[in-house]
Amino acid sequence: MPIKEAKKEIKSMIDINKDLERVDILNDEGYKIIQNPQLYCFNMDAVLISDFAKASSDDLVLDIGSGNAIIPLLMHSRYKPAKIFALEIQETSADLARRSVFLNNLESDIEVINDDAKNASKYFKPSSLDVIVSNPPYMEAGLKPRQKEVSLARHETALSFEDLASVVAKHLKVGGAFYLVHRTYRLVDVIATLRKYKLEPKEIRFVKPYKDKEANVFLLKAVRGAKPFLKLLNELIVYEKQGIYTQDIKDIYKM
Amino acid sequence: MPIKEAKKEIKSMIDINKDLERVDILNDEGYKIIQNPQLYCFNMDAVLISDFAKASSDDLVLDIGSGNAIIPLLMHSRYKPAKIFALEIQETSADLARRSVFLNNLESDIEVINDDAKNASKYFKPSSLDVIVSNPPYMEAGLKPRQKEVSLARHETALSFEDLASVVAKHLKVGGAFYLVHRTYRLVDVIATLRKYKLEPKEIRFVKPYKDKEANVFLLKAVRGAKPFLKLLNELIVYEKQGIYTQDIKDIYKM
Repeated sequence: MPIKEAKKEIKSMIDINKDLERVDILNDEGYKIIQNPQLYCFNMDAVLISDFAKASSDDLVLDIGSGNAIIPLLMHSRYKPAKIFALEIQETSADLARRSVFLNNLESDIEVINDDAKNASKYFKPSSLDVIVSNPPYMEAGLKPRQKEVSLARHETALSFEDLASVVAKHLKVGGAFYLVHRTYRLVDVIATLRKYKLEPKEIRFVKPYKDKEANVFLLKAVRGAKPFLKLLNELIVYEKQGIYTQDIKDIYKM
Repeated sequence: MPIKEAKKEIKSMIDINKDLERVDILNDEGYKIIQNPQLYCFNMDAVLISDFAKASSDDLVLDIGSGNAIIPLLMHSRYKPAKIFALEIQETSADLARRSVFLNNLESDIEVINDDAKNASKYFKPSSLDVIVSNPPYMEAGLKPRQKEVSLARHETALSFEDLASVVAKHLKVGGAFYLVHRTYRLVDVIATLRKYKLEPKEIRFVKPYKDKEANVFLLKAVRGAKPFLKLLNELIVYEKQGIYTQDIKDIYKM
């Protein structure tokens, strides 16, 4: 059997638990992702940050708290960077991520690492990464614990924002960009902490559900060691009216 | 001559240099301000912060870098707080401010102090003020010095934002509010500095010239000693189209 055929056969054998998991098509290019709705499905934040973040073809990219690798898959689709590392502490999520990478034939482009972000120095040298991206847990630790997997993805139990900033500051190159998505009510924590770690916020884009509502989410680009000067981008509005996305969102989703 | 008549006569004798100065009517209630267009006239920022800031009738209010006292006059018109102190370093501006206060018969409500904000402790006890407001110089020191008066009002030559925050943190009561207007490109400096002085940013309202433009100004409310949780208010848009204010701005100007 030729190698390509054999590989195809292996792909078809990827272990998907059809009772608990599903395979979603991500875009026109046919990128797929395995999701387990009982654990955690990616949401719009992940799609928005994958679009807001930028990477070049020779960039080394790290996604911290990668879940089922939704951001690496979408960023690969958009930018084809040299390598994307998907760092995820939860074994179940990292397993989904590995199988999705395999399903998309991207084993040489996306590497899943199942470990705590605080152990990043086991895998990366100081100042070695061009781009770091994260959709971090946005609630502070100690609020309403739910199912463990959901809780870890949403709450700062395993990783405080300060921990995250310190890992980013250590492994990002000077001049390299850190892209993140977070909730507006935490903006002060985020900005003050980034500044403390010399990750200077350079661009912020607020995201609001409707034109006349307040923004509840923001996208932020920080550059390690940059001079202060913030550019506030025009807000991104999600819905034209209930159930109808704006053209901006349709463009991001390529709908 | 009865006292009232005598007072009227004195008012009419207020020394206004008609070649250099003009008297502007501020609102329907007849508040007036003396301005010298060659020095510095108040702009929309001052009007916006006077509306964004709030004060109760028993509050002690301090305006730091008060110029010709535009903010104290407008805040007096809106809220009639117990006392407003207008602290201004420049003698020419403080002189305009004093004459405007006199012209409006507000000598017992607004007290002009001609001194450096760094000397605030000569006039105020620690933790003694309910509300502090400021339209501080928004450019960092060292950029393009122009005419001295304009330069001091616009550049952080006499007062860095850090100096300002430290004065506010010293004299504001715990739980008291600090309201300021600033430029979006300095947002990170402002937020990080306020946090450092335990003046927690609680509300931000961005101001944009047109609906589809980026915001260039923000209004911020910080509360001394408060817990972190930022509320991002809906943006304020200035112009409907060129030369036509939005209803929000007309409401603020009471037009």
